[in-house]
Amino acid sequence: MNGVYHYQKLEHYCAALLEKAGVPGAEATVIAESLVQADLRGVDSHGVIRTDIYLKRLKAGMVAVDGEMKAHTDGPVTVLDGGNHFGAVVGSRALELAEEGTKRNGVAVVGVKGSNHFGTCSYYLLKAIAKDMILLVLSNASQTMPPTGGVRPFIGTNPFAVGVPAGRHQPFILDMATSVVARGKIIAAAQAGESIPLGWAIDKDGNPTTDANAALAGSVLPVGGAKGYGISMFVDILSGVLTGAGFGKYVNNMYENWEQTQNVGHFFIGLDIARFMPVQQFKDRMDLYIDEIKAEPKAPGVSEIFIPGELEHRMSLERMKTGIVLPSRVEGELRFWGEQYGLQLSDALLTPASTA
Amino acid sequence: MNGVYHYQKLEHYCAALLEKAGVPGAEATVIAESLVQADLRGVDSHGVIRTDIYLKRLKAGMVAVDGEMKAHTDGPVTVLDGGNHFGAVVGSRALELAEEGTKRNGVAVVGVKGSNHFGTCSYYLLKAIAKDMILLVLSNASQTMPPTGGVRPFIGTNPFAVGVPAGRHQPFILDMATSVVARGKIIAAAQAGESIPLGWAIDKDGNPTTDANAALAGSVLPVGGAKGYGISMFVDILSGVLTGAGFGKYVNNMYENWEQTQNVGHFFIGLDIARFMPVQQFKDRMDLYIDEIKAEPKAPGVSEIFIPGELEHRMSLERMKTGIVLPSRVEGELRFWGEQYGLQLSDALLTPASTA
Ligand SMILES: NC(=O)c1ccc[n+]([C@@H]2O[C@H](COP(=O)([O-])OP(=O)(O)OC[C@H]3O[C@@H](n4cnc5c(N)ncnc54)[C@H](O)[C@@H]3O)[C@@H](O)[C@H]2O)c1
Ligand SMILES: NC(=O)c1ccc[n+]([C@@H]2O[C@H](COP(=O)([O-])OP(=O)(O)OC[C@H]3O[C@@H](n4cnc5c(N)ncnc54)[C@H](O)[C@@H]3O)[C@@H](O)[C@H]2O)c1
Repeated sequence: MNGVYHYQKLEHYCAALLEKAGVPGAEATVIAESLVQADLRGVDSHGVIRTDIYLKRLKAGMVAVDGEMKAHTDGPVTVLDGGNHFGAVVGSRALELAEEGTKRNGVAVVGVKGSNHFGTCSYYLLKAIAKDMILLVLSNASQTMPPTGGVRPFIGTNPFAVGVPAGRHQPFILDMATSVVARGKIIAAAQAGESIPLGWAIDKDGNPTTDANAALAGSVLPVGGAKGYGISMFVDILSGVLTGAGFGKYVNNMYENWEQTQNVGHFFIGLDIARFMPVQQFKDRMDLYIDEIKAEPKAPGVSEIFIPGELEHRMSLERMKTGIVLPSRVEGELRFWGEQYGLQLSDALLTPASTA
Repeated sequence: MNGVYHYQKLEHYCAALLEKAGVPGAEATVIAESLVQADLRGVDSHGVIRTDIYLKRLKAGMVAVDGEMKAHTDGPVTVLDGGNHFGAVVGSRALELAEEGTKRNGVAVVGVKGSNHFGTCSYYLLKAIAKDMILLVLSNASQTMPPTGGVRPFIGTNPFAVGVPAGRHQPFILDMATSVVARGKIIAAAQAGESIPLGWAIDKDGNPTTDANAALAGSVLPVGGAKGYGISMFVDILSGVLTGAGFGKYVNNMYENWEQTQNVGHFFIGLDIARFMPVQQFKDRMDLYIDEIKAEPKAPGVSEIFIPGELEHRMSLERMKTGIVLPSRVEGELRFWGEQYGLQLSDALLTPASTA
């Protein structure tokens, strides 16, 4: 039986592990918060499951916890060198710069190099939305998808994300990998012995496949064929080619490359709603838009039409109450690190265990 | 037998029609240039086929050819009211403002309301690229696609486009509708009596269909399911909700609504490459990126890997030489308007006809 964890306790536990490993307190909190928020929102692939690899890279000296992040701002444009700090730390600094720049200039662009895997884009979107900003967040990632017509991974599933505040309604949070589906879904199908729909992946020779195992040996495909390929390239160009970060094969895989830093790039664009119209008027327009979409007639078997971000918001409220269930492997990893540092994973359980 | 037209002569012909109909000369040239460029690039759905509806709307008083376009610029942010001018005219003004703002501030955002159908986004991208800028262009459009889970059109195929200069290589031009495919492909299948792949469209009751006729009575679907739906909404939010233009059902259909102006919205974001790194260094990085992608091993049956925009560029070079073939219906419409205004469509033929 897997344990059920309380989100805040789990966040404290992961933050404590990171701190024991040498991450300054405030940074450890940011990283842990971003991971647990992903678990709350149902994006388990980007949740505390990543704690282990983050700690391993830190131990191996592949991520920095001191040294400066250098930002150069010229009007509404900032270039930030993340100094190889953890992605969530660099991303949070980029967010601050985007927020300041947007307030000052109405729009701000922050190009980031020298970063690492920064979790979900939603983490940054939600903070910007709380300040009545619209935020676009792009990031490149290591190679997992072929170009259209290719055979092997060349571009990452480079996420594209946009957050927009609404009024009565939850904000619009589009946060998507540029692949058809997360690779995690193919792993799940392989484990369940199920086939996958045609179009999700190709085998290692570039042939379309419905065999989940053949797909895992091959590559996951961009969403919508050449359109997803193009969006993924665009994200790579802004995040990597333009900022001076890696792009394509120069974004190093954090699981496989123990010689070089990742050199991930991000790109943030902030927009100040108030420069276009009064914020309340904008929110009323968003509410009207969302009301009208949600009132649309539904296809057979569909009970509700959703706005991007709505499902994750509901999941989050749910899991705050009912807790977060972790796979045994992840529990094992977290317990292992706890043992190194004298921390008890059972302290993070939703209902304190009678036997620890 | 359909006539084969010379792109420059065809542009002059269409511009002359527009001028005779009351469009000032410079504006007529911009509109005709944007239409013929689409035909050259193989985007026939946005080519001179639109001349007829543009002229009809002008005659019906649904589009303005005089009156001011009002722009309000505050630092890097401009809000432009297109004053109901033709979309290509408003889009061209937005482009100028984006170019000026980008040079001045490093980044510029132009939100546009009060516009009309503005053709392909590539038209604006290509001009910006010639000035070593990166440009994003978004536009909303009238209702053609259901939200995920919906039955009937609510959002437009709202195009999303990005142009980026390269060095030796052709520029990166991603210019995509947010639908799986253009509705034109479903019309073609219906005419050929062929079925369409599952996933392209739903019938009028919201059921997935492979029947092209049932699809035409229903709606084309967003690309990649909820991801395309989300991108289309994002485009609508920036172009419409934020600018004060129409959004959702408030973007009027130019073929069906003869009572109200379209109130289309656009959104331009310009980035000055030189604020990030020397332009030549950026172009070298783009060339390396493109070289590496094009050198990737190819899937069975694939002869070449393409960069977004490359196919359209080749088509354009080809059609500049071999000419543009127009469907009989379009020839008929253009000939009809020529008769009203004393112009000869045959003057635009690639090889002057012996009998006109
Ligand atoms: N840092 C990295 O390197 C990296 C790389 C890839 C992905 N990611 C993250 O992975 C996460 C998951 O990406 P994904 O593409 O698998 O997510 P997904 O496919 O589950 O969702 C994509 C988007 O579609 C929306 N959506 C889904 N179903 C919907 C429906 N029925 N109606 C309306 N909207 C709906 C979601 O709210 C979300 O905004 C993201 O948070 C992304 O930031 C990160
Ligand atoms: N103004 C409007 O209201 C409106 C609405 C919708 C679409 N449009 C226009 O319609 C046009 C067509 O859109 P579409 O989505 O049907 O185009 P498409 O599907 O033919 O192409 C989309 C993009 O993918 C690229 N591409 C296609 N195949 C490729 C391959 N094999 N390798 C690499 N890249 C490839 C293209 O270069 C293009 O950038 C666009 O110009 C768009 O601006 C305008």
